[in-house]
Amino acid sequence: MRFVDMIEKKADGGELSGNEILTMVSGFVSGEIPDYQMSAMMMAIREKGMTPRETGQLTLAMMNSGDVADLSDLPGIKLDKHSTGGVGDTTTLAVAPLVAACGGTVAKMSGRGLGHTGGTLDKLESIPGTSVEISLDRFKEIVRENGVAVIGQTADLVPADKKMYALRDVTATVRSIPLIASSIMSKKMASGADAIVLDVKTGSGAFMRETEDAFRLAQMMVDIGTLTGRKVRALVTDMDQPLGMAIGNALEVREAVQLLAGQIPETDPLFRVCILLGVHMLIIGELAENEEQAEEMLKEKIRDGSGLKKLKEMIRLQGGDDSYIDPVKIEELVAVKQKIAVIPDHPGYVAGMNAEMIGTAAQMLGAGRAKKGDAIDPAVGIMMKCRNGDYLAKGKAICTLHVNDDRYLNEVIELMKKAVTISDQPGETRPMIHGVVTENTNYR
Amino acid sequence: MRFVDMIEKKADGGELSGNEILTMVSGFVSGEIPDYQMSAMMMAIREKGMTPRETGQLTLAMMNSGDVADLSDLPGIKLDKHSTGGVGDTTTLAVAPLVAACGGTVAKMSGRGLGHTGGTLDKLESIPGTSVEISLDRFKEIVRENGVAVIGQTADLVPADKKMYALRDVTATVRSIPLIASSIMSKKMASGADAIVLDVKTGSGAFMRETEDAFRLAQMMVDIGTLTGRKVRALVTDMDQPLGMAIGNALEVREAVQLLAGQIPETDPLFRVCILLGVHMLIIGELAENEEQAEEMLKEKIRDGSGLKKLKEMIRLQGGDDSYIDPVKIEELVAVKQKIAVIPDHPGYVAGMNAEMIGTAAQMLGAGRAKKGDAIDPAVGIMMKCRNGDYLAKGKAICTLHVNDDRYLNEVIELMKKAVTISDQPGETRPMIHGVVTENTNYR
Repeated sequence: MRFVDMIEKKADGGELSGNEILTMVSGFVSGEIPDYQMSAMMMAIREKGMTPRETGQLTLAMMNSGDVADLSDLPGIKLDKHSTGGVGDTTTLAVAPLVAACGGTVAKMSGRGLGHTGGTLDKLESIPGTSVEISLDRFKEIVRENGVAVIGQTADLVPADKKMYALRDVTATVRSIPLIASSIMSKKMASGADAIVLDVKTGSGAFMRETEDAFRLAQMMVDIGTLTGRKVRALVTDMDQPLGMAIGNALEVREAVQLLAGQIPETDPLFRVCILLGVHMLIIGELAENEEQAEEMLKEKIRDGSGLKKLKEMIRLQGGDDSYIDPVKIEELVAVKQKIAVIPDHPGYVAGMNAEMIGTAAQMLGAGRAKKGDAIDPAVGIMMKCRNGDYLAKGKAICTLHVNDDRYLNEVIELMKKAVTISDQPGETRPMIHGVVTENTNYR
Repeated sequence: MRFVDMIEKKADGGELSGNEILTMVSGFVSGEIPDYQMSAMMMAIREKGMTPRETGQLTLAMMNSGDVADLSDLPGIKLDKHSTGGVGDTTTLAVAPLVAACGGTVAKMSGRGLGHTGGTLDKLESIPGTSVEISLDRFKEIVRENGVAVIGQTADLVPADKKMYALRDVTATVRSIPLIASSIMSKKMASGADAIVLDVKTGSGAFMRETEDAFRLAQMMVDIGTLTGRKVRALVTDMDQPLGMAIGNALEVREAVQLLAGQIPETDPLFRVCILLGVHMLIIGELAENEEQAEEMLKEKIRDGSGLKKLKEMIRLQGGDDSYIDPVKIEELVAVKQKIAVIPDHPGYVAGMNAEMIGTAAQMLGAGRAKKGDAIDPAVGIMMKCRNGDYLAKGKAICTLHVNDDRYLNEVIELMKKAVTISDQPGETRPMIHGVVTENTNYR
């Protein structure tokens, strides 16, 4: 079948065969299928969707377009987690050590994608000496020894995704649930994970603005897992405001350290999402029988300090100065030239936040990259001082800006005032956890 | 607005502004907008459609991408007709002279597109000496003197359409009613026509297989006319079998000459479609007040021979040997080495035809081009000997093949047997004229 006929088939609402999908992915990567045909196909996919079977086969074809990490010589079920991006999301640095402390094998490869704020790799690199560029063999040694390591993806991981994403970005084909699902899952699977817990964000700071779309994306990824023999579960959590109070690299590491040191209350949203991620990792990792047991195990690893110890050891094994993994010593990493409180123009309730704007504000302070290759200042960022629904009395701050370079300071202050809506009414509050998608749910 | 945001807007079901459409067409023609973005946009248009306003503005933007013929110094309303392609469609050569004989100004530019069989230009060129490559000034002189001329489109007519079509052909974006409508109408309008009667074919030999789609295309072109100040009407006629009995270039000219000479009965499908086209041309050309009057005028021009005289004069003015425009003399143009009757394997009713296959059979005999630049043999082709519903007794032929080069003869015979279904039952017969779309109808 010629590729133009496959495009026609999809545009007519047909289902592509496994062979057709393989032809498409390998042809596009080799350059045999030109960009102008692939963009038409991806638009047809955006418009007509893909069945779970098609999406599963697309994921496998993409996964096999480059290196696939073989972690089979590591003991047990290889666990991974992935968040679809958000602001103030420090979960990996807290959950991965906790699950390892419970006996899990957490061999995590992270991407260094663009974003308002730095990714997990940038957060790790804010700890002096820590390396995320580690060979696969050394990575496996660390995981075997400590149960947990977090490194950067190899350059040749899923080249099909790199090429497809670059084209999607300029042809308005980013917003397609099967294309997003296969992009995420192909990278997770190529990284060697057997079992994956996903955190799909929904809300103003998330890519999935609509909760319904977030559930559909979550279900699609769980379906891909079922079809490809991976255990996959997905939380749908709120990103209508930053998850944690810290936005910035070392600031977020500090928050993770505080969480592991038991200094963050159990009602805190970051704490709750971390525990829920950990619970489902323990269950699909066959380390706990039920949610209650799993939650108790995780909390115990906070109480006895073994979670913090795992993170400390991971940093040491990855070449970092582990003395910073300490709630007191880490203050040195967040020292900045000035801290500026942003006070709203009038008192009132926090009636809503635009998490994306808050992320952009942190980026303008130097915490994230506007484009690939930009430098990041690990110490700077934003500490939020309020959450949706809070009442801010006269003179109370929205947040504190942690500043070294004050070039865009006025713009950042204005942006933060715009990002946080102050009103006479507290406004509607959204649940923190919207739901959990498992192999038994159906959000198609 | 960046072009990627326009694609997103269309993919989300939005309506593009006139400015956005202009930016798209001019940007694509200049090369500023790359193929891969344009193909994504055209797929979004295929999937989400375009409003009549968008389609009208697209048509104008395409029309203005190249030369626009100025026929304003010719007298009266400049009339044109266009058929969306079909097999055995000889209408132009009969209708254009008849309408001119009634006092109409028929200044027609034809395209030399690919097709199963030759186009109008190929048919004209089958008359020795006839030229269709004539300067615009000479073209206008001929029209002023004789009321009718048919030439080829200038090379720079609607370059946007050439570039868009080439891309649509390889990206499965041909089947889009707004894109088809704007492609046809931009060329008709750039050719200088004030009033256009379209013949949209539906059935097995037509591009629009579904009658409903044919009506929607017809209505869209009428809407474009309303929005751009042109008078446009459209017939929807059947192409489930060849329109005339002749398929081949000189064979079709002979059929047109026979029609103009009064040798074809009024019940004949080709006769009926020619008269209906002529009727609506006379009405929108303000040469007749109603259909009855128009029909009588046209038939009178057959009876008194003035239609045939117009064609003869047109051929002479375009440099051709007009002695061939004669029902006896024209037999010389259709002389071939052998004529072969195709007899079905068993007697029975003609229960259906695949007009596209019949066109392909004629092409294999040398009557049409498989690719641009292929030579055409004007004399060869197929004379049909049956129509749907006919009973063919034992030994009766489906058709006669007119052959000079017998290279593919066996394949052609097999193809013809496959194209014409013989059955114990006569099968369903379809109406020849499905309807007429005017400024007062609504098939949206």
